[in-house]
Amino acid sequence: MNLIDTSNGTHETVSDLGEHQLIEWLHSRIPSPPPWVKVELGDDAAVVEPKRNSSTVLTVDALIEGIHFDFSFIKPIDVGFKSLAASLSDLAAMGATPRVTLLSLALPPKLPLRVFKDMVNGFLEAAKQHSIQLVGGNLSRSPGPLVVDVTALGAVGRRRILTRRGAKPGDELFVSGTIGSAATGLKILKAEPSILQNNSSCPSAIERFCRPTPRVRLGELVGKNRAASACIDLSDGLADAVHQLASANDVGMKINSKAIPIDPDVVRWCQEHGSNALEVALQGGEDYELLFVVPKKSRRNFLALKRLIREVSLTSIGVVTSEIEVLLEHNGRTSLLPPGFVHF
Amino acid sequence: MNLIDTSNGTHETVSDLGEHQLIEWLHSRIPSPPPWVKVELGDDAAVVEPKRNSSTVLTVDALIEGIHFDFSFIKPIDVGFKSLAASLSDLAAMGATPRVTLLSLALPPKLPLRVFKDMVNGFLEAAKQHSIQLVGGNLSRSPGPLVVDVTALGAVGRRRILTRRGAKPGDELFVSGTIGSAATGLKILKAEPSILQNNSSCPSAIERFCRPTPRVRLGELVGKNRAASACIDLSDGLADAVHQLASANDVGMKINSKAIPIDPDVVRWCQEHGSNALEVALQGGEDYELLFVVPKKSRRNFLALKRLIREVSLTSIGVVTSEIEVLLEHNGRTSLLPPGFVHF
Repeated sequence: MNLIDTSNGTHETVSDLGEHQLIEWLHSRIPSPPPWVKVELGDDAAVVEPKRNSSTVLTVDALIEGIHFDFSFIKPIDVGFKSLAASLSDLAAMGATPRVTLLSLALPPKLPLRVFKDMVNGFLEAAKQHSIQLVGGNLSRSPGPLVVDVTALGAVGRRRILTRRGAKPGDELFVSGTIGSAATGLKILKAEPSILQNNSSCPSAIERFCRPTPRVRLGELVGKNRAASACIDLSDGLADAVHQLASANDVGMKINSKAIPIDPDVVRWCQEHGSNALEVALQGGEDYELLFVVPKKSRRNFLALKRLIREVSLTSIGVVTSEIEVLLEHNGRTSLLPPGFVHF
Repeated sequence: MNLIDTSNGTHETVSDLGEHQLIEWLHSRIPSPPPWVKVELGDDAAVVEPKRNSSTVLTVDALIEGIHFDFSFIKPIDVGFKSLAASLSDLAAMGATPRVTLLSLALPPKLPLRVFKDMVNGFLEAAKQHSIQLVGGNLSRSPGPLVVDVTALGAVGRRRILTRRGAKPGDELFVSGTIGSAATGLKILKAEPSILQNNSSCPSAIERFCRPTPRVRLGELVGKNRAASACIDLSDGLADAVHQLASANDVGMKINSKAIPIDPDVVRWCQEHGSNALEVALQGGEDYELLFVVPKKSRRNFLALKRLIREVSLTSIGVVTSEIEVLLEHNGRTSLLPPGFVHF
């Protein structure tokens, strides 16, 4: 089954419209830029005024058809949304406020125009939600898969930059939201793609997979009130993030499996379908939650933060240790935390 | 024939090494960053201090295997070099000084490790030549072609920004360097790929195709001394650039075919091989020269600029007109300038 809807009777492809017209259409969809955008789409490059007294945070991320998504289980509009959400999550992990984005698309010439438009609409929806302005990009032809490459820029106060470095033994590890939902959503969609058009057994997991919420406001606040000494986002799963954070700081970490916040609906779905919810939570990617480290001296700032951030839970899942080992406490036994997801 | 050299006896692929090791290798090749780079490769995002009193210029460009290049006629090291040169040319067209770049690669898992390393080395060679720092990026697996996506950021004084807009009837049109060389180089390489390893009938054209020189210093100076009222780079050929510049300004342009600077070696090669040199110069892309507009009142600034820029010729090729037509004067006859290259 393919979710691309051609039932409106048109079978136009992107190559029917041509590069200039695609760009024109795209341009017409972009809201007016804020005054600090000096040159937007349509010139050789975009020009923006940097935010006063701030550093510029920049990141790039790609979604590739056949690797990160497949139109048999996700709609084009959600691919567009997710492609920006992934980069926004990187900005959030640095404590940055989103500002501008560039969208580089490699389009198979036979890609239905509808898919292109839906994808751009999804991208712009995410952009609107998180107040980031599309100021430039690139359209190329692809002889293979559709490739969505997203660059995002943000601003962060010079002394508010959150990095992966700064964790010390004794610090506490926190994670936002719930873990394993996106991976469960993907499993459900891969098993029953028709679910996208119907009711589902676990709609929250599907929503989390298709429309992830990058923790932009949380990242900004964590950076601003200095609650955390180090932070990383969970693009490739909790286990991977814990390992990367430990390795960046030359420390160990000990995670308590019972503390890992898993959505009860996901736990139930996993039980019913013979999946191990803990494994899904550790290995499953694309939750786009934040994992951050709170030193004892920042405990008060953290509690203040918790009062401000009511829309997302913040859960203590373990501690930073001085032994260079990443451990998982599970059912009274301690073992090495398995490594995370690797792209190759 | 394939130019990928596996004669060193290793047949390692990028998937043999794996994502983390590829990133580590890449990291080890990057020179120490300048002090205004606060966070570089290895975190969720990079952080840089904006240049004081400057605007940020940003652009993204992609090179895709099978569309923009093919290892049957260009070496991996040159693909890496060109991928950055294309983005640098966009910065130059805005009058910007290059600062930082992000490299997003979609790698087929069977890509020889040698190709990956050569490509990165070529990219870093271009980065060194033009003083731009690689601060971040992304590695993905590709189920299809190799995709090289390059984001580049530069800085430009707030009142020194060069855009495509500003051309007025009566202004003079100038182009830098020589035109049609890169397209001729591509023709030669496609006809005789063995040339890459041998002597060639037109080495300058091949060099121009494989190792283009983005006009970074020229762009900076044109912006700084306000010699030009509008500027664009020639990524898709002269005809395309003239049409785009005319359309951005709601004006016409008249080009004199005799004035177009074509390398005499290219003219000779075209004569010997039954190509029309003028057609190649108008339609052929990837010269990465600058096309800019000099108003009468800026004539003195322009002459001052010409004295400063001795390494590249600046040639008057036509004028801006009030009739909304783009014309070519050729052998005493005036006709519409054919449109440029289109990607779809």
